Amino acid sequence: MQREIKKIGILTAGGDCPGLNPVIRSVVRTAILKYGLEVVGFNHGYKGLYHNDVTELTLDSVSGILPIGGTMLYSSNKDNLFDYTVEENGKMVQKDVSDVGVENMKKNGIDAMVIIGGDGTLTSGRDFARKGVKVVGVPKTIDNDLSCTDYTFGFDTAVSVACEAADRLHSTALSHSRIMVLEVMGRYAGWIALAAGISGGADAILIPEIPYDIQKVADSLKERASRGKNFAVVVVAEGAKSVSGELHVSKVIEGSPDPIRLGGIGNKIAEELESLVGLEARSTILGHIQRGGSPTAHDRILSTRYGAAAVELLMQGKFGMMVTLKGDDMGYASLEDVIGKNKAVDPSGELVSIAKGIGISFGD
Amino acid sequence: MQREIKKIGILTAGGDCPGLNPVIRSVVRTAILKYGLEVVGFNHGYKGLYHNDVTELTLDSVSGILPIGGTMLYSSNKDNLFDYTVEENGKMVQKDVSDVGVENMKKNGIDAMVIIGGDGTLTSGRDFARKGVKVVGVPKTIDNDLSCTDYTFGFDTAVSVACEAADRLHSTALSHSRIMVLEVMGRYAGWIALAAGISGGADAILIPEIPYDIQKVADSLKERASRGKNFAVVVVAEGAKSVSGELHVSKVIEGSPDPIRLGGIGNKIAEELESLVGLEARSTILGHIQRGGSPTAHDRILSTRYGAAAVELLMQGKFGMMVTLKGDDMGYASLEDVIGKNKAVDPSGELVSIAKGIGISFGD
Amino acid sequence: MQREIKKIGILTAGGDCPGLNPVIRSVVRTAILKYGLEVVGFNHGYKGLYHNDVTELTLDSVSGILPIGGTMLYSSNKDNLFDYTVEENGKMVQKDVSDVGVENMKKNGIDAMVIIGGDGTLTSGRDFARKGVKVVGVPKTIDNDLSCTDYTFGFDTAVSVACEAADRLHSTALSHSRIMVLEVMGRYAGWIALAAGISGGADAILIPEIPYDIQKVADSLKERASRGKNFAVVVVAEGAKSVSGELHVSKVIEGSPDPIRLGGIGNKIAEELESLVGLEARSTILGHIQRGGSPTAHDRILSTRYGAAAVELLMQGKFGMMVTLKGDDMGYASLEDVIGKNKAVDPSGELVSIAKGIGISFGD
Amino acid sequence: MQREIKKIGILTAGGDCPGLNPVIRSVVRTAILKYGLEVVGFNHGYKGLYHNDVTELTLDSVSGILPIGGTMLYSSNKDNLFDYTVEENGKMVQKDVSDVGVENMKKNGIDAMVIIGGDGTLTSGRDFARKGVKVVGVPKTIDNDLSCTDYTFGFDTAVSVACEAADRLHSTALSHSRIMVLEVMGRYAGWIALAAGISGGADAILIPEIPYDIQKVADSLKERASRGKNFAVVVVAEGAKSVSGELHVSKVIEGSPDPIRLGGIGNKIAEELESLVGLEARSTILGHIQRGGSPTAHDRILSTRYGAAAVELLMQGKFGMMVTLKGDDMGYASLEDVIGKNKAVDPSGELVSIAKGIGISFGD
Repeated sequence: MQREIKKIGILTAGGDCPGLNPVIRSVVRTAILKYGLEVVGFNHGYKGLYHNDVTELTLDSVSGILPIGGTMLYSSNKDNLFDYTVEENGKMVQKDVSDVGVENMKKNGIDAMVIIGGDGTLTSGRDFARKGVKVVGVPKTIDNDLSCTDYTFGFDTAVSVACEAADRLHSTALSHSRIMVLEVMGRYAGWIALAAGISGGADAILIPEIPYDIQKVADSLKERASRGKNFAVVVVAEGAKSVSGELHVSKVIEGSPDPIRLGGIGNKIAEELESLVGLEARSTILGHIQRGGSPTAHDRILSTRYGAAAVELLMQGKFGMMVTLKGDDMGYASLEDVIGKNKAVDPSGELVSIAKGIGISFGD
Repeated sequence: MQREIKKIGILTAGGDCPGLNPVIRSVVRTAILKYGLEVVGFNHGYKGLYHNDVTELTLDSVSGILPIGGTMLYSSNKDNLFDYTVEENGKMVQKDVSDVGVENMKKNGIDAMVIIGGDGTLTSGRDFARKGVKVVGVPKTIDNDLSCTDYTFGFDTAVSVACEAADRLHSTALSHSRIMVLEVMGRYAGWIALAAGISGGADAILIPEIPYDIQKVADSLKERASRGKNFAVVVVAEGAKSVSGELHVSKVIEGSPDPIRLGGIGNKIAEELESLVGLEARSTILGHIQRGGSPTAHDRILSTRYGAAAVELLMQGKFGMMVTLKGDDMGYASLEDVIGKNKAVDPSGELVSIAKGIGISFGD
Repeated sequence: MQREIKKIGILTAGGDCPGLNPVIRSVVRTAILKYGLEVVGFNHGYKGLYHNDVTELTLDSVSGILPIGGTMLYSSNKDNLFDYTVEENGKMVQKDVSDVGVENMKKNGIDAMVIIGGDGTLTSGRDFARKGVKVVGVPKTIDNDLSCTDYTFGFDTAVSVACEAADRLHSTALSHSRIMVLEVMGRYAGWIALAAGISGGADAILIPEIPYDIQKVADSLKERASRGKNFAVVVVAEGAKSVSGELHVSKVIEGSPDPIRLGGIGNKIAEELESLVGLEARSTILGHIQRGGSPTAHDRILSTRYGAAAVELLMQGKFGMMVTLKGDDMGYASLEDVIGKNKAVDPSGELVSIAKGIGISFGD
Repeated sequence: MQREIKKIGILTAGGDCPGLNPVIRSVVRTAILKYGLEVVGFNHGYKGLYHNDVTELTLDSVSGILPIGGTMLYSSNKDNLFDYTVEENGKMVQKDVSDVGVENMKKNGIDAMVIIGGDGTLTSGRDFARKGVKVVGVPKTIDNDLSCTDYTFGFDTAVSVACEAADRLHSTALSHSRIMVLEVMGRYAGWIALAAGISGGADAILIPEIPYDIQKVADSLKERASRGKNFAVVVVAEGAKSVSGELHVSKVIEGSPDPIRLGGIGNKIAEELESLVGLEARSTILGHIQRGGSPTAHDRILSTRYGAAAVELLMQGKFGMMVTLKGDDMGYASLEDVIGKNKAVDPSGELVSIAKGIGISFGD
């Protein structure tokens, strides 16, 4: 056991994700109750680490946050202390200010950090580990596309919200003989679309991993209509691509680190299907309601496990690691191995295969 | 009591609305169990009346439909037998085919009709009443903007879905210091926006009845930020208008009976507020998930009351009437008086006044 | 306008009820933002008034409490300062200590009080009013049985929880050919049972206002079985009485101010129906989950209206009054008129009549 | 591939469990769409197999059942064709009538059976397999205590219902300084209690696998109260045992195959804790609402996987097997190995250890 660890810091960064508060609660309670540690949180992610914006975390601070969405430590997007925007001589310049972060950890007497975030956040985590900081990462993404771990918290809640939306669209589809298109999150991976589609009874699911031919989707819906089912629900990931390789981009934002803004493909799919199938089609873009709000029971348990396992890793001296879930077991992987990879849906894996077996079209 | 009524017909027309099935169930059960009537349903609204597409409705047919969204009789939009599109000599022409409808009622031995729908559907209902058909109307609109009745079924469910969405957006707004804009239904009236805004803890609510000055909305959010609350949730009705009288129209559809398609104003509001307030803003357009799915307990009771009251009206010989809810009492109003009016939110009424009193900005 | 009112106090007492936090929030925000008042809360109901346990209430204190169940001011049951248990010379005696309460109001500079509670709590409210305290009462009961007001907040949430439970029991009833009995709250009035029964598709509803003959209930279920429906859902209020006048009392607690503990009648009904109908029967006692947790959108709006109206009453100098809802309008009634009455379900009113019309048995 | 399989039968038996309909749907759709098989269902479990009560299952029959609780094939408890109650010469006798079942399979041209149920149901499944019937079993239990598989469908829904109940009880506990005890299902295993307790923020969890000392539970709640938290939520499995080995039995039913009826331990625990801790305590017995109703998205996916995997097993000729989930992979195990075992919570496993680490008492 790491006897030299007496005080740990936590921060959350990146997009909102149901389960952040349960992770924080679990880290804090395990650290205090099991190991007698002190805990502080940096507010607003790396920005707070830079500005030394800290909060002491006690049993009381985390009381009641288990069912609450968001993160009590706030978050911020795109703040990278290794390439940070600071003002110098009246100009905004990009600079490596990670030393300020390390210094702030020291100022607060922090022996080790739990960093909760997605690929970008964990890249900085790895970079701090390379600088000698004792870091343990906790994977966060509602998209479930981080490598080395089977499931991430927040995913079940996102799927649950999307599935309920699909249920609601079903009644309209059926009553009005319509095609209802539901666009869900997933720029690079189709996990949410796949799970929401299977649980929501979709007739077609379009995901980035399986380029779709809209004519084939239309054909499957026409075949369905010929069996008397002249309505359908189609679930589309925002990053779904047609076979021509074309991505639907609703807007290009100049100078953005993420140069294009996806989303809106649902509208395009609805228009195309209306014309090809000959049924009225409507689309709904689910958007941010997938990311916020109270986590499901499932996600609360998973978050609690991730948080506790992060503290265990620290106490076992396994630094530079990320907590993982493999099968039903908690494990870990090196941050070096996790970063920059995308865990894609396997087009010939079990889930897609089952979905095809029950008649869901992927447009391929 | 109307002893001459032995058999009644039902149809549902217009957009989807949670509670349609409970209304049908209540009409059928009351008619059969209380009055020993026979009941048939026309499928797909007026289209089914034209094509004589009928279903016998028994206790068994309506078993289990109470919690189910949509309408077991299907619906259709914009089909008006008094101005119907038919083919004649290879050409599509508009014609009054209402006599075919009346004849089909006779063919099925129907003595009176329960017609469930919104303003358009009930206009035809009134027109059939003028032709001597014994009609009772049941008001249907999730927008709650039909005149002569305080609340319509489906409204509570729509508000409940929108409120849950606002809850989810709150956690993201708070964690990320963002303005989250939620666009809800309401082209001509702001009832859903008002109720979802109050129940969802909105900081600003924009509705058609109160033209907004975006600068005033921004000022109220800046004042809020100056008190340390640098996040906000804004609920916008799709038909909200700025003080300049401008309506946001996302798309003009040529030749459509509804010449413009509203919606998308949420995106515009988000962009304007981001620039005026200086906080990141995101928008979510809730769309069709407000209209579908299982009705709330409240709506199931209200629907059951509307359905039962419709049969009572028929049995009391009050034809050409629409069932109404005034306060907590069921009543009725003449279809002649209901049609073509819009029940708007009163800008100086109690609800708006309460909302303003707790600090919600309407941008006025 | 009451210019002499500068500071108000609030307390909540009695059983838990969804909507208490929204009422507090609405009172605080309206008082501060609309009228520039100061607000303090007494914790733990009258107990806190006695012990001068106060909290300053600001916009910040009530931030985020809208969707949260319970009351941020805590509550206590059965504490009546006009007949309070205190220690004197080593003995517990009952005493009128209301002067201590009045003194504590003065100590805190409180000009008027908003008292939120049920019949017992409001009786003390009236008694304080008689002593000259400027009191406005807000009615609180999930049972909806307070007189002079149509609906109380918390009721819609309780019905919604009970309706969802009935939905869940339906699937088991149908799959297993069983009678599922659901016992809900309602000692003296059957409002929850009636509303949950109608919205949850019950086949029989037993309420205190309509003494039931179990044989008649059984007969109606047998008739149903003869039509092929050999399953049923029965909703029972805990205070339901059989025609023999007998109340089911699960437990007598000596010396309790409420000498008998009701509840458990569901088990009795299930046993009797199993034997009389010849189908397996099971019972579920819903209990406290009806009283806790996040309020529905409907209840949040109603609570917000009640809270705002309470402040308006104070500012209009209407003391000794309780806020009421009549139809869709906020109003008020004298606390003198409200106390000690029970608003019962009318056995020949519209709701019962509609329920009977759709075939629901009340065992009468 | 098993070319000789052209037609399969399905039956569901035992207690209700959310996810049964999705399993049936998945079996039917996979069988028809992927393998071109015919499918029939026996109604009411083994009783229907005995009485040859069959339904043809088509794509249409399973349309719309995905979100619906219960089983469209109905179920029955305790009907075992190898020891069946039949009338002979006016007397009820126990007899092996399994040959009638085999004959009815033949009559319907059934080549193989998918049997969905718990330990009892699958025991008969194994016995039919021993008689040469081509059987594949699908494990069904909300209790999650079947051996050889990590998770069973229905469990996530049960946990989700129990977690929501715990959330609701929390608000009452906190507002009233009470101990709220929630009794959940789990006669022989504490899976639901453990998961509901962790996700619902319980302060103590009592399960059959860890005999509890009520004094130790009380001590942990007193320690909590000494930190200012004078309220608690305690989750208890119905089969929880005290260290004295004593089981709480609410009722002994003579001659029942399950001679004692558990349940009601929540009341006992509440009484004991009220007296030992000195805080008011109340209990809620969740009961059947854990077993019924719409399955969660998670359970719909898991059910769909189980159903599809069952058909795959049949087509691969793996008879006498049960479908399993190990980690995130579908697999199978011999029915011979599954039967009569109980998968208990490991008192020193990861979940219990995490729960203890965050301060949850198990009374040991």
